[in-house]
Amino acid sequence: MLDLLFAGGTLVTGCKDSNIVTNGVIGVSGGKIELIMEAPKHPQDLPQAKEIIRLDSEIIMPGLINTHCHAADSLFRGLVENMSLEDWLQDVWKAEKAMLTPETTLLGSYLGLAENLLAGVTTVVDMFWYPFETAKASIDLGMRLCTGGLFIDFPGVGNRTHDQYLNEASDFCSKYQNSKTIFPAVMPHGTYTVGPEHLQDAKKIADEYKAVFSTHAAETRFEQTDIKERYGRSVIRHLDNLNILDDRAILAHCVHLDDYEKDLLKERNSVIAHNPMSNLKLGSGIAPVLDFLERDINVTVGTDGAISGNDLDMWLSMRLAATLPKGALMKPDIISAKEVIGMVTSNGAKALGKSSDIGSLEVGKQADLIVISTQAIHAAPLFDPITHLVYSTAKSDVKHVFIGGKQCVRDGSILNVNMEDILCEVRKLRDPILKTLE
Amino acid sequence: MLDLLFAGGTLVTGCKDSNIVTNGVIGVSGGKIELIMEAPKHPQDLPQAKEIIRLDSEIIMPGLINTHCHAADSLFRGLVENMSLEDWLQDVWKAEKAMLTPETTLLGSYLGLAENLLAGVTTVVDMFWYPFETAKASIDLGMRLCTGGLFIDFPGVGNRTHDQYLNEASDFCSKYQNSKTIFPAVMPHGTYTVGPEHLQDAKKIADEYKAVFSTHAAETRFEQTDIKERYGRSVIRHLDNLNILDDRAILAHCVHLDDYEKDLLKERNSVIAHNPMSNLKLGSGIAPVLDFLERDINVTVGTDGAISGNDLDMWLSMRLAATLPKGALMKPDIISAKEVIGMVTSNGAKALGKSSDIGSLEVGKQADLIVISTQAIHAAPLFDPITHLVYSTAKSDVKHVFIGGKQCVRDGSILNVNMEDILCEVRKLRDPILKTLE
Repeated sequence: MLDLLFAGGTLVTGCKDSNIVTNGVIGVSGGKIELIMEAPKHPQDLPQAKEIIRLDSEIIMPGLINTHCHAADSLFRGLVENMSLEDWLQDVWKAEKAMLTPETTLLGSYLGLAENLLAGVTTVVDMFWYPFETAKASIDLGMRLCTGGLFIDFPGVGNRTHDQYLNEASDFCSKYQNSKTIFPAVMPHGTYTVGPEHLQDAKKIADEYKAVFSTHAAETRFEQTDIKERYGRSVIRHLDNLNILDDRAILAHCVHLDDYEKDLLKERNSVIAHNPMSNLKLGSGIAPVLDFLERDINVTVGTDGAISGNDLDMWLSMRLAATLPKGALMKPDIISAKEVIGMVTSNGAKALGKSSDIGSLEVGKQADLIVISTQAIHAAPLFDPITHLVYSTAKSDVKHVFIGGKQCVRDGSILNVNMEDILCEVRKLRDPILKTLE
Repeated sequence: MLDLLFAGGTLVTGCKDSNIVTNGVIGVSGGKIELIMEAPKHPQDLPQAKEIIRLDSEIIMPGLINTHCHAADSLFRGLVENMSLEDWLQDVWKAEKAMLTPETTLLGSYLGLAENLLAGVTTVVDMFWYPFETAKASIDLGMRLCTGGLFIDFPGVGNRTHDQYLNEASDFCSKYQNSKTIFPAVMPHGTYTVGPEHLQDAKKIADEYKAVFSTHAAETRFEQTDIKERYGRSVIRHLDNLNILDDRAILAHCVHLDDYEKDLLKERNSVIAHNPMSNLKLGSGIAPVLDFLERDINVTVGTDGAISGNDLDMWLSMRLAATLPKGALMKPDIISAKEVIGMVTSNGAKALGKSSDIGSLEVGKQADLIVISTQAIHAAPLFDPITHLVYSTAKSDVKHVFIGGKQCVRDGSILNVNMEDILCEVRKLRDPILKTLE
């Protein structure tokens, strides 16, 4: 007897071949996908299950993987506008330093992760000041999270020293090294905020625990100029020179790379987290995604924090990932919708070294799946589910979210955390946050 | 006694000065705004009205004006993908010609206009094959529409001759010349599909009825090359040479203009309908919106048809209007959120010659207003209503829509037309439409 059965609906499996099953069935046991098949002719031939979710016109697809986020920064959504990354960061850090404690970080993490979850994101790669708090929020919501110790070389939130950051990063990796839902990472902020030795210290911890190493890289032209002036080489060369690039390195942004740097990322099997909305809004530029794909670099997609992009909408990120290069290069036939579905599912899983567990609907993998309504007016008619998902689906179409076979969103509502309470607390912080920049 | 009173909520009036009223009150009588004020301290001091809509955290703003759409093309949403405008048009026309009758056009018009309406659009500028049908759908939904006779120089849908197009265009203008909700226009498809004499014939009708003249212009590089080869001058020069450019000319796209053409549009007070998503997806390019704004050209925003952009989401269009130029030019401080609110409200009204009736919340204007919920997780916290509207609001946040004081959307549902019936009919067309391209 299965724990859970999805009967009906169109499956977009996210696997390489045969990735659409019209009128499909998914069986789940012990949190994992036990079977995937076409629906039998007679309903009485359906496999038996403790719970059956009957679907019809809905689409079921793997949960989305957001590979670059700062969930708790949602507290500051819309606070700092119309500035370049460099000026903007000064205000952001000022507000963060004045407001952030473990308690407010927990609150912000619920806020940001819940927004992800409602939009169908089941796994988030998150970089923030208090990773243990973000992990708590993620666990409470029932999500998967890749996060861990942040590093920054100036007195940031909590005024921590490098040794303190090192201890926190080790402690986090140690605590979660065997977790099925929290994937430890080590997260120095960037090459312009963390010196070479400290980057290498961070990398050592990542290596010790086989953890993800994630950092901001080559986000703006200014950053490239700055790093070249400081170290005599560009950002990606600098990271490579420090032996940091490998297949566990997730580099957020990569908007400004020369060809040598692109080749280097391919050679090292490193991962790019593409954040198109944030890059547009901060005036950072338009990332050369086509060049990455032509080199077969693992391109994944993120929302960045709501403090830069103003929301955490992976559907918007997908749509921009598909269309921005078409528009910028005036090439309508590049970047297929299928490639974009891969970026937000299987590529993300691969980036986390979790390809055998998540990222597609396949027997033996975790039942991380989302059910998408196609009843909205903007979903009619529907010729092809893949292009529909990339070009027409809105976050409000996400109906149910299951992670490891457990339901976390039902009919567009979060199940495991009382979000009304969270929102009430968040709104109380509005005025104090505004005051931090006075 | 007022007909209708909105009590509470934050008003974003869209007027030049003092355009936010926190805890405001709007009174409506005879379809027009009678009063706008701050809420009195004591609820018993509220003006009397037959109906009172009590609001709290909601935002009220003018209805959005979508200045370029092909509503009924929603029937073909997602049918033709990954092609340049030129190749794509061949397939589009083939499918349109095989499927479109007045009946299917009416169906498609309900579909496309309802999607606009649900997203808070109260006035649509629409170009399509059977304008009388689109007008019927608009009237039934309770919306405002600017449309009219289309012109094309080859046997298009219905195999009409130029004389037939001329008659239809005149008849439409004549029928609706005094309408408060249907604003007549004359709509030759473009300079590459309609010859100079026929463009001038169309313009004559527009002049006779003081109607809007709208056409596609300078959408792709190919179009510019093509027109230069045919007529020895670029698209905007060509239109000017035919004496077509004035303040009633709405030119859709304008992606590829040289400085002389930009100056010319300013000199003639012509209007640009900017369609960022369609331009990206078709690989047409990124329109030089900053150059237009620096020249003080009237820039308005459209969705284009769902056959190119795959949905009709003015919030996405707004967000791209605000962020694409920032990203493309790497200038985060250009194009304020306030400017973008103007593009989708007052600029649109001006483009239609209706500034005294619609486009802002002002006493004496039509009560075309939309109520936006701020209860979603992506709306917390909310520091500034203007940036919130441009950068964080989703179409699913649109709660109520009123046009001329009459409610057309309540709690996210269309009131005046049974959309379930429409969707049922639309879905029946899916397979026949697919077959048209076999």
